[in-house]
Amino acid sequence: QTTDSTAKATPVVVQQPAPNAVQETPKKKAWYDRISLRGYAQVRYNRLLETNPNLKCDQCDKSLGDGGGLFLRRGRLIFSGDVSDRLYIYIQPDFASSASSNTLHFFQLRDAYFDVSLDKNKVYRFRVGQSKIPYGFENLQSSSNRLALDRNDALNSAIANERDLGIFFYWTPEAIQERFKLLTDAGLKGTGNYGVFGIGIYNGQTANKPEVNSTQHVVARLSYPLLVGGKQIIEPGIQAYTGKYVVTPDQVSSGVGIEEKYLKDGFDDQRLAASVVVYPQPFGFQAEYNVGRGPEFNLESNAIEVQNLHGGYAQAMYRKEVGSQVLIPFVKVQHYEGGKKHERDAPGYSVYETEIGVEWLVHKSVELTADYSIGDRTIRNAQNFDNRQYGNRLRLQAQFNF
Amino acid sequence: QTTDSTAKATPVVVQQPAPNAVQETPKKKAWYDRISLRGYAQVRYNRLLETNPNLKCDQCDKSLGDGGGLFLRRGRLIFSGDVSDRLYIYIQPDFASSASSNTLHFFQLRDAYFDVSLDKNKVYRFRVGQSKIPYGFENLQSSSNRLALDRNDALNSAIANERDLGIFFYWTPEAIQERFKLLTDAGLKGTGNYGVFGIGIYNGQTANKPEVNSTQHVVARLSYPLLVGGKQIIEPGIQAYTGKYVVTPDQVSSGVGIEEKYLKDGFDDQRLAASVVVYPQPFGFQAEYNVGRGPEFNLESNAIEVQNLHGGYAQAMYRKEVGSQVLIPFVKVQHYEGGKKHERDAPGYSVYETEIGVEWLVHKSVELTADYSIGDRTIRNAQNFDNRQYGNRLRLQAQFNF
Amino acid sequence: QTTDSTAKATPVVVQQPAPNAVQETPKKKAWYDRISLRGYAQVRYNRLLETNPNLKCDQCDKSLGDGGGLFLRRGRLIFSGDVSDRLYIYIQPDFASSASSNTLHFFQLRDAYFDVSLDKNKVYRFRVGQSKIPYGFENLQSSSNRLALDRNDALNSAIANERDLGIFFYWTPEAIQERFKLLTDAGLKGTGNYGVFGIGIYNGQTANKPEVNSTQHVVARLSYPLLVGGKQIIEPGIQAYTGKYVVTPDQVSSGVGIEEKYLKDGFDDQRLAASVVVYPQPFGFQAEYNVGRGPEFNLESNAIEVQNLHGGYAQAMYRKEVGSQVLIPFVKVQHYEGGKKHERDAPGYSVYETEIGVEWLVHKSVELTADYSIGDRTIRNAQNFDNRQYGNRLRLQAQFNF
Repeated sequence: QTTDSTAKATPVVVQQPAPNAVQETPKKKAWYDRISLRGYAQVRYNRLLETNPNLKCDQCDKSLGDGGGLFLRRGRLIFSGDVSDRLYIYIQPDFASSASSNTLHFFQLRDAYFDVSLDKNKVYRFRVGQSKIPYGFENLQSSSNRLALDRNDALNSAIANERDLGIFFYWTPEAIQERFKLLTDAGLKGTGNYGVFGIGIYNGQTANKPEVNSTQHVVARLSYPLLVGGKQIIEPGIQAYTGKYVVTPDQVSSGVGIEEKYLKDGFDDQRLAASVVVYPQPFGFQAEYNVGRGPEFNLESNAIEVQNLHGGYAQAMYRKEVGSQVLIPFVKVQHYEGGKKHERDAPGYSVYETEIGVEWLVHKSVELTADYSIGDRTIRNAQNFDNRQYGNRLRLQAQFNF
Repeated sequence: QTTDSTAKATPVVVQQPAPNAVQETPKKKAWYDRISLRGYAQVRYNRLLETNPNLKCDQCDKSLGDGGGLFLRRGRLIFSGDVSDRLYIYIQPDFASSASSNTLHFFQLRDAYFDVSLDKNKVYRFRVGQSKIPYGFENLQSSSNRLALDRNDALNSAIANERDLGIFFYWTPEAIQERFKLLTDAGLKGTGNYGVFGIGIYNGQTANKPEVNSTQHVVARLSYPLLVGGKQIIEPGIQAYTGKYVVTPDQVSSGVGIEEKYLKDGFDDQRLAASVVVYPQPFGFQAEYNVGRGPEFNLESNAIEVQNLHGGYAQAMYRKEVGSQVLIPFVKVQHYEGGKKHERDAPGYSVYETEIGVEWLVHKSVELTADYSIGDRTIRNAQNFDNRQYGNRLRLQAQFNF
Repeated sequence: QTTDSTAKATPVVVQQPAPNAVQETPKKKAWYDRISLRGYAQVRYNRLLETNPNLKCDQCDKSLGDGGGLFLRRGRLIFSGDVSDRLYIYIQPDFASSASSNTLHFFQLRDAYFDVSLDKNKVYRFRVGQSKIPYGFENLQSSSNRLALDRNDALNSAIANERDLGIFFYWTPEAIQERFKLLTDAGLKGTGNYGVFGIGIYNGQTANKPEVNSTQHVVARLSYPLLVGGKQIIEPGIQAYTGKYVVTPDQVSSGVGIEEKYLKDGFDDQRLAASVVVYPQPFGFQAEYNVGRGPEFNLESNAIEVQNLHGGYAQAMYRKEVGSQVLIPFVKVQHYEGGKKHERDAPGYSVYETEIGVEWLVHKSVELTADYSIGDRTIRNAQNFDNRQYGNRLRLQAQFNF
C-alpha cells in the first residue's frame, strides 16, 4: 500500500524504506503494523433515584446498591493483529479485576486467543486459547457495544465472563466476513466474526478458573446475518452446549449437601438457546431465550442438585444520528428462572427486570448511557430461602473508546 | 536513515503516504500516533549504614529495615495520548504491586483517567476515572521527578497512593498550560497540569479500594505558577478536602473499639493544606503544611476516634548542570503528628525526619539518588502504645526512564 | 509542526519528516522505535495416554495429571528496546499467573531489567532489576525456544521461575555478541546474550518474593560459544552460586521442625553446575549437571535441614528443515536427587524422567510439540514419607509466537 501510493506520486522510483523497521526483522512488517493497541473503559454510578439499596446483582455490577459509589466496571486494553498471514492474535487484559474482595484494579486476562486460518481468506479458522464461548448473541457482543448496562441473567448465567479456555473451529464465507465487519464498523452493534458456524470444546469451569473434572464441555452455534430488501439485516441464531460443571468445595457452605457423584464428576450443565436480531436501521429488535439444566440449590433437601432452568429477554431500540452524534433509546425486558452455578451454593433465582434507557454517542470516543431499571429479584440459598428484593434505580455510565 | 535515503532517491515532490496506517481506520491517525508508551522504574537498596533495623515505614517503602534487600519500589508503564481532539487517556499500571504480603510484582492500576475537554484548547476539562487527588504539590508530582525517595508523611497520609476514583473539573488557561509543561520538560520537577483551579468528588476509600459508605469526598485546589522577574517561577497553592472515611472491619484488630456511627458512616476526614514551590533555577525551595481531622487510635479508650492532625515539610535544593549531566543536592525536613487511616487500627504517629541527599542524572535515562535519612518515628496502636524508633541510614536508588 | 517545516524547507529535496514523531520529543526517535512489543503463548493438553493421574509435578506444569484440562502454561508480552544509546529495557509480564490457587490469568512480572552499558558497543553491561539468574543453560534459554515442555528438575530447582531481583555485570566481546544473536535468530535455540562472563548478587528468595534474611546470594558464570570447523558451534559453560535461603513460616507445616539458626538466617543454598551444548546443525546435543546443598525435609528428624543434592539431564536433537517448516525430534533423560526449597516443607525428591518428542514449526508463528514422557517421581515430605508415582503420558503443546 505504502509502496503503491508513493509510486503513483512520482515517475521516479523511490525506494521507500520501511519506516522505522525494527532492525532484527528487516523483511517483515514493523511490530506496530502487526500488533495494534486499542481499548475502552466504563465508569458508572448506580445510586440515583434508588428505592431499594438491597436490590443487588453480583453477576451484573458489584457496585449496585448499598455501599456502591463510583465504579470502574470495565477497563480494557486490546493488543491484537495479524502477526502473520495465517495467525491473528487477540490479547485483552481487563484492568478492573479484583484479586480479592477489597483489592481492585488488577490486570487479569479476558481474552488470549490465537486464530490459525487454514486458508488465506480466513474462511476456515481454528481458535485456541481463552475466548468467548459461542453461546448467545448478547454474550458475544462486546460490552462496549451493548446498549443496556448489563447482560441478561438468563443467557449470561451460562458462562461467567462469557469465556473459557478451549479450541474452536469457525467457518465464515468471505461475503459474510464483510457483513459481520460492517455490522460493527457502522455502529450497528454486531458481535464481530464468530462464524456462521462454530463448534468447540472448552474446560467448562469458565474464565480464569482451573479445570477440575478432566472432561470438556462441547458447544456449537449457527448464526447467519440475512440481508433483507437490500438494507435491513436480520440475524437469527441457534446454539447449544453440554458438559459437566463442578461446584468446587470453596463454593459450598457448610451444611449444604452434594451427592458423591456430583462432587467428583460435576453436575449436568446443558443449555439450548435461540436468538434473533434485527439491526437498528433505524428501528431494531433483539430477543434471545434459553432452556437447560444445571446445578441449583434445592430448599427441601438443603442440597445442590441438577434442576431445570429457562429464561430470556427482548429488546427494542431506535438509532438516530444527530449530526456527528448518535442517540439510541432502548427498552429491554428480561426474565430468568434457574440456578447460578458460579455463585456460592448455586442459588436459585427468579429474575424479572425492565430497563428503559438511552445511549448517547457524544463524541466519537465518548459515550454516555442512562438506564432506568425496574427490578424484582429473588435469591434462594441456604442463608435465605426466599430473599426477594425489588425496586427501581437510575444508572449512569460514561464509556471512553480509544 | 529514512531522511537520507529519500533525499537521495529523487528531487521530485514525493507525496508521503501516511506511513503504516492501520487499514480499518484510513482517515484517523494510526494507533501509535494516538497512543504512546513510556514509563519508569525504581530499584532501591536501603540498608547501608543502617543504625536501627526496626525503624520502618510501610507507607514509605516496605523494604526499609530488617529483612529488606534489593527492592523494585515502582515500575510503571504509561499508555497515554490524545485519542481524539476532545479525549485524552492516561492508563498507568504499576508492575511492582503485591497481591498479598508474599507475592510481589503483579500489575495493578495506578491511573486510568479520561480527560474530556470542553473546548479545543483544553482550558476546561473534566477528568473521569482513577487519578491523583488534587491535594498537595508533592502528592501530585510524579515519583519519577521527586528528589527525596519518599513523600512526606504529613500530606501523603491523606490519600494512599495519592489516588482515588472520581470526577474532577480542571481549569487551566492556555498560557499556564505552557508553563506547567515547561516546568516538567525543563527538568524543574513540576506536577504537570492539574489545573490552576481544580474541584472534584471521589469515593474516599483511596486507590484500588471499593467504596463503602455511599458518600463521596469533595476536594478543591487553587495553584498558580507565577513568573517572577522573567525567569523565576514561584508556585503557591492551597487545597482542602472533606468526607467520611470508613475503617473497614478487616483493618481493625479484635478488642479495638469503634462507635456504631463511625462503623457505618465513617469517620470525619478533613484536611486543609498550603504549598509553596520556588523552582530550582538554580536554587529552589519547597514547603507544604496541612492541618485536619481524621480517624486515629486513642490509647485511653482503646478505640479509634476522630482526632486532630497536623504536619508538613520543607525542602531546599540546588540544580547544577554539568555537561549533559545534572546534579541536584537537597535537604528535606519533615514532621507529622496524627493518625494514619490506611493502616491497621489507624495508629497515631509522631514523625520527625531529616534527609540530606543528591540526585544525579547520569545519562538522560538513568538517574541515581543517594539519600541519607535521619529519622525518629513513634507509632501508637493497640499492640504497642509507644513504639518509638530512631536511627539513620543511607538509601540508594537507581531510576530508569524510558 | 512536522508538516510546516517540510513545507517551508524546499520544493525540491524533500526533508523526510520523522514519520509519526511524537510531538513532545522532536529530536529523539518515536516511542515505537525505541520500544517494541512481541510475545508468545503456550496452550497445552497433558492427558493423552495417561497411565497414572497421580504423577504430577508442580514445578513443571500445574495441569499435569488428575483434574488437568486445557491449560495456558505461559503467556508473555515483551516490551523491550534500546531507549537510549546506553540503556536497554526489557519488561516481560506473564499473563498466565495465578493470584491464588483458583484465580488464574493475572498479569505478573517475569522480567523487568535495565541494562546500562559502559561502552557504546555494549561489551560491558550492568543489569539491574528482576532477571534470569545466570545459572544453567536451560534456565537461561527462553521457554519459547526449549524443545522439551518443561525444564529439568535438577537445575531448575535452584531458582523458581529462573529469576530474582539483583545487580549483575556481563562481559561479551563484540564478536560473541554476534554469535549469541545468530544462535537465536537462526533457530538454533540459544540463550541470547547472558555474557561470556557474568557475575552478580541477588536477594535469593527467587522471583516475585520479598527478601527475608537481609543477605544476598552471589552467582558467577562463564560460557563460550566455540566455533568449530567453520560451522559447528559448541558452548561449554560453568556456573555456581551461594547464599542463604529462608523457608518462610507460611511454607512450613505444623509439626515440622526448623532449627533456630535456620529460621532467622536461612539455610545454606549452594550449587555448582557444568553445561555443554552442541547446537543442532543438524545434529545437536545438550547436557547439564549440578551438585550442591540446600534445605530438604529429613524423614528421621521430621525437620528441614541442609542436605546434599545432585542431578542433571542430557538431550539429543536433530534439526530438519522441510520447505519453510522445521521438524526437531528430540530425546531427553533427566535425574534429580535432592530437596525442592520452593515447595512446602522443602520436600526431598527422587526424579527419573525420559522424554521422546518432536517440535514442529508449522508456520513461522505457530509451533506444535508432542512430548511422550515416561516418569518416576518420589516425593518425601511430612504428609507422605515415600510418595512414589510413575507412569507415562503424551503431552501436546501449541505455541504462538508474535
